[in-house]
Amino acid sequence: MKTFFLLAICCIVVRLHAQPGIEIFDRHIEKNGAQILGDFATLLSYPNVAADLPNINKNAGYIVAELKKRGVEAKLLRMVGTPPIIYGYLPAENSDRTLALYVHYDGQPVDKTRWKNDPWKPTLYDQALDKGGKVIPMPKASDQINSEWRLYARSAGDDKAPIISILTALDAIRENNLKITSNLVFFFEGQEEAGSQQLRRYLEDHRELIDEIDLWMFCDGPVHQSGKPQLVFGVRGVTGMEITIYGSNRSLHSGHYGNWAPVPGQLISKLIGSMKDDDGNVIIDGFYDDVEPLNAIEIEALANIPAIDEALKKELGLNDTEGSGSLYERLLYPSLTVRGLSSGNVGTLARNVIPSHATASLGIRLVKGCDPEKMKDLVEEHIRKQGYHIVREDPDEETRLKHSKIARVTRGSGYPAARTSMNDKFAKMVVERARQVTNDDLILLPTLGGSLPLYLFTDILDKPAIIVPIANHDNNQHAANENLRIANLWYGIKLMGGIMTMK
Amino acid sequence: MKTFFLLAICCIVVRLHAQPGIEIFDRHIEKNGAQILGDFATLLSYPNVAADLPNINKNAGYIVAELKKRGVEAKLLRMVGTPPIIYGYLPAENSDRTLALYVHYDGQPVDKTRWKNDPWKPTLYDQALDKGGKVIPMPKASDQINSEWRLYARSAGDDKAPIISILTALDAIRENNLKITSNLVFFFEGQEEAGSQQLRRYLEDHRELIDEIDLWMFCDGPVHQSGKPQLVFGVRGVTGMEITIYGSNRSLHSGHYGNWAPVPGQLISKLIGSMKDDDGNVIIDGFYDDVEPLNAIEIEALANIPAIDEALKKELGLNDTEGSGSLYERLLYPSLTVRGLSSGNVGTLARNVIPSHATASLGIRLVKGCDPEKMKDLVEEHIRKQGYHIVREDPDEETRLKHSKIARVTRGSGYPAARTSMNDKFAKMVVERARQVTNDDLILLPTLGGSLPLYLFTDILDKPAIIVPIANHDNNQHAANENLRIANLWYGIKLMGGIMTMK
Repeated sequence: MKTFFLLAICCIVVRLHAQPGIEIFDRHIEKNGAQILGDFATLLSYPNVAADLPNINKNAGYIVAELKKRGVEAKLLRMVGTPPIIYGYLPAENSDRTLALYVHYDGQPVDKTRWKNDPWKPTLYDQALDKGGKVIPMPKASDQINSEWRLYARSAGDDKAPIISILTALDAIRENNLKITSNLVFFFEGQEEAGSQQLRRYLEDHRELIDEIDLWMFCDGPVHQSGKPQLVFGVRGVTGMEITIYGSNRSLHSGHYGNWAPVPGQLISKLIGSMKDDDGNVIIDGFYDDVEPLNAIEIEALANIPAIDEALKKELGLNDTEGSGSLYERLLYPSLTVRGLSSGNVGTLARNVIPSHATASLGIRLVKGCDPEKMKDLVEEHIRKQGYHIVREDPDEETRLKHSKIARVTRGSGYPAARTSMNDKFAKMVVERARQVTNDDLILLPTLGGSLPLYLFTDILDKPAIIVPIANHDNNQHAANENLRIANLWYGIKLMGGIMTMK
Repeated sequence: MKTFFLLAICCIVVRLHAQPGIEIFDRHIEKNGAQILGDFATLLSYPNVAADLPNINKNAGYIVAELKKRGVEAKLLRMVGTPPIIYGYLPAENSDRTLALYVHYDGQPVDKTRWKNDPWKPTLYDQALDKGGKVIPMPKASDQINSEWRLYARSAGDDKAPIISILTALDAIRENNLKITSNLVFFFEGQEEAGSQQLRRYLEDHRELIDEIDLWMFCDGPVHQSGKPQLVFGVRGVTGMEITIYGSNRSLHSGHYGNWAPVPGQLISKLIGSMKDDDGNVIIDGFYDDVEPLNAIEIEALANIPAIDEALKKELGLNDTEGSGSLYERLLYPSLTVRGLSSGNVGTLARNVIPSHATASLGIRLVKGCDPEKMKDLVEEHIRKQGYHIVREDPDEETRLKHSKIARVTRGSGYPAARTSMNDKFAKMVVERARQVTNDDLILLPTLGGSLPLYLFTDILDKPAIIVPIANHDNNQHAANENLRIANLWYGIKLMGGIMTMK
């Protein structure tokens, strides 16, 4: 008891005094709010679709210059025909700890007809558009800024908010004579929304620039649906496959042949239906076998996530969900979903034919431990167990006449899940600092349900990597009218500043 | 033994002497072949899409005039805005037997870009186009006519061949001083290819014209796939339904929600999969309960149909078929086929989403005994047994939140099967006569797999009805390059003449 008590005292002391206060960043924001918003609007005014290289280069040039202004050794890593990586390095005095901040400066392509304003003419609103927000002028230096305002522009949330947060945090540190406490690597990608096709090669080609990094932080994605800040320790992997089942070599009249000719829509239904039980659990042999279990700290974190299932079910119009367990528990397992089903026609186009084939597109999400190729092997093995002969191309006549059940399987590409332990030394430091920034109102998520190629860092580079989101959850990421809630920008600045100055 | 022997002698005598010979029609064809083909080409030159009323009326006017020329009391039965029925009556001397010949003079709409020639400019070929046929000029009176020639035009096979056959048979009868032996009713419909929507009303409105009919003969459809002539005693009925299964009220990201959100493509697969066993037999309770069994003569007829299964499987690229039993046996049962399946996207359009819904379109073919509404009730009952709440419209939020499994069922219209007993007195006479025309090489089919609204005659008018096809099986019915093989035209003339003059 006594030991515990002393330890508790120590902790409180540490939390009150050991770390430079976050309030410095609060004051900086209060004093410079209008200037920060103006700088953010400038950053957002550069069109940034990855395929548009001239504009992508303008983005990169602007951001490099801004980093340099703040003392960062910044440069562009280039590969012909691809958006450059913005690489920056800022050494700390007397620290052998190196932290990397990953951001992407490209954005999703836009359909301007669906936007209220030009996506690259940042527009300030007094609240969210769907709550009846009205346009307001950008604030002047003396104006009061309401943190519920929103700035609308492509990449306001995904993913330029971390860039302005980092630049502002560096300003605040310099103006307040603070010191950064870790060596910092800035790694800003320019083709994330286009699939990060060259990311692996960039990493391999510039290994010497990133080898000393102790922790990668992916400043991307939104905070928790509840609106609370979160740190995320993993992502699911992703792959997929397509299955086509064959009937006759042409569509048949359902009268002349119905009850005799094989019905591909029926066969594929039986096949897909056989992959899950009535509760939605996958019953393909071995599908859950490689799932890596959580450790104690992760189980505890999971228990502390606010319950969102009931609200989510209401929002989505669902009485029930697959399997048993909460959303966050279910995301810790691989998933098998039907992305698409197609055979013949439905609705007014439906005709009295037996179509010649039926196709199902399956999505597979992977968790830590699952190999993408092995998972597809398991599905294929299941298909074989249902009596199917598997082919890779449309079957020829000989194959058709030889096998009563034929499935063409096309294996999709993909990549594995990634997860960093919540016990990781550097990750724990960031958690501690984020708790200060958030007044202890922080969610720790073992994994996102979605996928990012985080495995490049955790499994290929063999470094811990966590996700550090800043944007509001309703930022309309990837869609029209993307926006950032100003309170989330302030949070981003404090979080970046806090991390840069943590002991 | 003795009795049997005597009976056999009688039969032979009857077949050798009792019926006027078919050879008269052979000679008529030999003498008038070029004229017949010319008249057929004239008949086929009238565009005859049901929706094109001005041209449909020209067809009707031409045909009525041709009937009148041959002594038929012919007229048009009219209903505003619909193609008229051509009705004709030709009384026999001293007969109380009345036979009706149904034909339809309208044809399927055409896509001229897919036709080798204008569909309404009949073109003669020396053999089938897909066998390398070449255009030849229409024959002159003295020319030899090859019965493998083909005349290409819309409705050459479906369904103007019986009209020219009837007109020519009447000519042959008159020119050879034969007598018709039954009162004849000619009933030529003008909207069969548009769905016969007004047929029932026409029949009801003109009951007095058709009440005395002893046997309806439907001169439509092709002869047997083996090329042999056939008489058909029934058709399957047809109906259908569409089932939509609901997941969330919007498409969901398969990463954020996969393994938690219901997957409509999975649910509909399980549902459709549950409707048949692994052999393709329907396992919906009661689905086969009302099937009316065949009698001895029908079972014998079935045994005498040439075996086509193996050839058909080879042609269609099939190693196996549904259930056990031959095609013709399987057609004696109701069928359940998946006309269409749809959810999300497949192929290059597939996205990592969980679609909000999945839809299946089901086709149901019915046999004698099955009620279309009851069959759909059985499918609905099966859906309920799988735990679904059935709705008729998209579910509202309250319904969504109340039920874990929701299926919207849309019931299609349809009509029952029809079958005339092979023991029917008048049908047996026609069979006997057709055996003479075909030198006993005749197939008797208890039912077609396809559907026609024959029930209007068998069940509503309560008259026997049989199908008397004339066209070659490869006449490209409903498609481009429809054609009639000249040998089938000669067969039609002889069959019509034979029926008109049978004792």
